[in-house]
Amino acid sequence: MRVLGVDCGGEYTGYGVVELEPSGKLRCLACGAIKLSPREALPRRLSRIYMQLGAVISEHLPDQVAIEDVFYALNVKSALKLGQIRGVAMLAAAAAGLEVAEYSPLTIKSSVVGYGRAEKQQVQNMVTRLLELPTPPEPMDASDALAIAICHLHTVATLARQDALAR
Amino acid sequence: MRVLGVDCGGEYTGYGVVELEPSGKLRCLACGAIKLSPREALPRRLSRIYMQLGAVISEHLPDQVAIEDVFYALNVKSALKLGQIRGVAMLAAAAAGLEVAEYSPLTIKSSVVGYGRAEKQQVQNMVTRLLELPTPPEPMDASDALAIAICHLHTVATLARQDALAR
Repeated sequence: MRVLGVDCGGEYTGYGVVELEPSGKLRCLACGAIKLSPREALPRRLSRIYMQLGAVISEHLPDQVAIEDVFYALNVKSALKLGQIRGVAMLAAAAAGLEVAEYSPLTIKSSVVGYGRAEKQQVQNMVTRLLELPTPPEPMDASDALAIAICHLHTVATLARQDALAR
Repeated sequence: MRVLGVDCGGEYTGYGVVELEPSGKLRCLACGAIKLSPREALPRRLSRIYMQLGAVISEHLPDQVAIEDVFYALNVKSALKLGQIRGVAMLAAAAAGLEVAEYSPLTIKSSVVGYGRAEKQQVQNMVTRLLELPTPPEPMDASDALAIAICHLHTVATLARQDALAR
């Protein structure tokens, strides 16, 4: 199973494609961040995110998309800004016929580091180890996107195991 | 000049296309609202808005798009929700190569009713009169979208007059 994780942000929107191999090994297929220029008009910036996520999807053909759920810890202005980017990211998934799973920051950190209040640095270290990457994924937004994808793969695997046990 | 006004909302997203004829007369070419089912997954809802706004644009070929600017009077949760819809509306404009103008609720009401604190009902009445419509546009979201388009046409006309006087 292959998952695209997306970490929406005002300046950078991170993405990461992770595959869970039949052996149980996690493999990073791609990661990066879409940088947005504040000098560009907002519709153009949104268009850039939409096109680039669409390109990642058509190149790596994920089965599902996972995205961070953000309800809290933000003010109205940044929530509105982030919402615009999330909307476009979700649309890119919908355009490819993909379902979108949402996870809270707490769930993502718990799933990857085993501790919901982990620092960003700890998440990055754990992502690097889990995916056996030669160097930590940069920028941090790319690492966060990989963490979201890993969280979804962990969740799906856990549900599948529970399902198998219940039979 | 022809403008598409979009009024983003959680339940209904209103749209209205208004043309300013060379005579100075305003004409309504289309208006309506895209209803969203809360039972549908969010990416699907966003996809529906994107497709339907795209259809309105390709049918009525507006020159520009105008949208309400919302920074205030909302909580974080609704700002995030609204942001997602705004992002998709802006993307529909960008996909058609159209610029997007943003106006605050105060500016829209002032421009249409002449009073920034006007009630929704007053806006609807004024939109009906200005566009010489046989009945008030329904739902209210469609009327609000027409008001946004009228506001933009008024603004463009005022700027053009000022520009002509300055020469």
